[in-house]
Amino acid sequence: MATIEELNRYEDVDTVLDALLWHARNLARADAGSIYLVEDGTLRFRYVHNDTLFGEGMQTGEGKAAVYRSHTLAMDETSIVGYVASTGRTLAIDDAYALPPESPFSFNKSFDHKTGYATKSILTIPLKSFSGELLGVMQIINARNAEGRFAPFDRESMTYIPLFANKCTVILERSMMTRERILRMIKLAELRDPKETGSHVQRVGSYAAEIYRSWAEFRGVRPEERKRYGDLIRIAAMLHDVGKVGIADAILKKPGKLTEDEYEAMKMHPIYGAQVFCDAAPALDQMCYDIALHHHERYDGAGYPGRIGDVMRPVGPRGAPLAGEDIPLSARIVALADVYDALCSSRVYKEAWSDDEVLALIMAEKGAQFDPELVDSFLRIQDVVYAIRLKFCDDCKS
Amino acid sequence: MATIEELNRYEDVDTVLDALLWHARNLARADAGSIYLVEDGTLRFRYVHNDTLFGEGMQTGEGKAAVYRSHTLAMDETSIVGYVASTGRTLAIDDAYALPPESPFSFNKSFDHKTGYATKSILTIPLKSFSGELLGVMQIINARNAEGRFAPFDRESMTYIPLFANKCTVILERSMMTRERILRMIKLAELRDPKETGSHVQRVGSYAAEIYRSWAEFRGVRPEERKRYGDLIRIAAMLHDVGKVGIADAILKKPGKLTEDEYEAMKMHPIYGAQVFCDAAPALDQMCYDIALHHHERYDGAGYPGRIGDVMRPVGPRGAPLAGEDIPLSARIVALADVYDALCSSRVYKEAWSDDEVLALIMAEKGAQFDPELVDSFLRIQDVVYAIRLKFCDDCKS
Repeated sequence: MATIEELNRYEDVDTVLDALLWHARNLARADAGSIYLVEDGTLRFRYVHNDTLFGEGMQTGEGKAAVYRSHTLAMDETSIVGYVASTGRTLAIDDAYALPPESPFSFNKSFDHKTGYATKSILTIPLKSFSGELLGVMQIINARNAEGRFAPFDRESMTYIPLFANKCTVILERSMMTRERILRMIKLAELRDPKETGSHVQRVGSYAAEIYRSWAEFRGVRPEERKRYGDLIRIAAMLHDVGKVGIADAILKKPGKLTEDEYEAMKMHPIYGAQVFCDAAPALDQMCYDIALHHHERYDGAGYPGRIGDVMRPVGPRGAPLAGEDIPLSARIVALADVYDALCSSRVYKEAWSDDEVLALIMAEKGAQFDPELVDSFLRIQDVVYAIRLKFCDDCKS
Repeated sequence: MATIEELNRYEDVDTVLDALLWHARNLARADAGSIYLVEDGTLRFRYVHNDTLFGEGMQTGEGKAAVYRSHTLAMDETSIVGYVASTGRTLAIDDAYALPPESPFSFNKSFDHKTGYATKSILTIPLKSFSGELLGVMQIINARNAEGRFAPFDRESMTYIPLFANKCTVILERSMMTRERILRMIKLAELRDPKETGSHVQRVGSYAAEIYRSWAEFRGVRPEERKRYGDLIRIAAMLHDVGKVGIADAILKKPGKLTEDEYEAMKMHPIYGAQVFCDAAPALDQMCYDIALHHHERYDGAGYPGRIGDVMRPVGPRGAPLAGEDIPLSARIVALADVYDALCSSRVYKEAWSDDEVLALIMAEKGAQFDPELVDSFLRIQDVVYAIRLKFCDDCKS
């Protein structure tokens, strides 16, 4: 299947979930779907599509924000998803509102009530790893018949969707592993600089992915390229500051203002970060390198470190700082995402700024510190940005 | 195929290569085989089996040492492996010594000359990723016919071995990715403590895997358990010291001897390391945790940090140090591997010890610092240990 080859190109778990849901729905022309993944013994909501509510291709901000909702289901009969997780068997329901009274599970009507959506047919599939372990549950909702009307799932889609899901779980598992390893690298960096918490990097990763998506839509970037780049930037953005591990304590942990010399030493962290990724061929590492090295460049050319011949030998005279579109797109995006997150967060030495203050600064720096097109792309998606802040708040589990 | 499910349980690339070669050979009752993986545009030798030379199951030390040989082949017709890499097509040869003169490749006789081995039939298979990228080349040598004599590969094995290899490449790719991510975590730790070089951790990982193998053979551990544990320990041992990232510069980088207080602070590094791995369920992370936390325990109970209730809250009175078999096996193994490697290496403040001095110390500490059975297991495999030292020497590419 060509679609499996497409999925196989993705590294990030969110891109994989999106593509998995997309292609599974497509097999039944289904209107909606969602995916839950197993986490600490419960089922955590991870992805959603709903053409009726959010527009096809999740074009509305509401749809993108919905992806960042945060809730869990128990692995039991209190929900259909939980029931399928506990039995490990695919379940097809023709009409969620006409379940026989003896059903061993119940349909939770709260989503329909809240949104006015009308759930009818539901196909719920356990996602199992190659070794049979439950990774999560996918639910496909409201299949369409040849006339385009909501209808029960036909025999063909009841056969092919679980088969397709089954073929994709190797890819899903790999992407979950990639995310896991990235978060572990971040935990390692956190030993040194507790400001670099898991929730900060998850936010910066999500902001970066969404700013890119908004910009790519505006620019009319081709869908394949959009997916490919969006896939990489979430992960790579999470790792933007790992080079701080190489900065001396006296500087990294200084409570007061840095002297000029200390600040110069601090400005080595992008180069250290680039050293971690410099010898790797994969596209992901290439982007990690670009972001680590250039996330402190400014659009007006007043940032650092500029062009570096060999990051492993960073002594000697530096090239001029990069400016404008010479700065890699990924690094321009993370520069904005990182500053936004820092301003919104409280630190030992500062309170969190108010939303108005933060947005005023970002608009003031449009074309100066930040790429003006990216600032506009960012401003267009404030509902999504806010959903990300809620999902990965500092006091909640990251 | 049940064998693919077996492979799918392994995390480490060496275990996967071993199992891949094992099962592929089995399909043709072949005597020998080897695997090369693509690295920086060349083909690096990575694994070998040879029942005639090294005994079945690579039982001899010579066989295990052969796995750690280090050489590369060009991706061209100067070798059969290189030719198959460059064409991307499987190649079957009935008799390596009877190639037609117009063959577009040549058979390198040097291995046979050096070892007295008689290569006859060769099946050489490109290993391609799901997306068609060349990962490496597997060569299966000297198929056997029903009478057990060396013979050309029959039609069945020419069909099934490439098919099997093809099915395994997803697993191979994943294991290569795991290794890659581990090495990147180590590069991150290296930013902080350049003593923790890639080659040091590769050696400690290999010593640990081989000490375990030697011990498990002596103890008669069941083969499945032997493979499973051996699979994890190589990776987990590489990460034993990452907790040093959390130690203050003033201590970690002090050129002289540490004061008592400083030494106490330094002794926090196992706990910091355990913090990185403490919330993860997979068996690999569990072992990473055990090793990070307990690799400075001593068999006689005079080590540290002992039992810790909650590594995330390590203040307050400590439990007694662990002793004897209360120390996890993996940590007892790494304690030995790590000290051995430190003694053999030169550091800013000390010369490398001679082999005699190192072995004398290890024997003197048998039953004191080190588990006596593990010391014996280690002493039995000095040829393998030496091959590992050669392969991952400090001045060569790690």
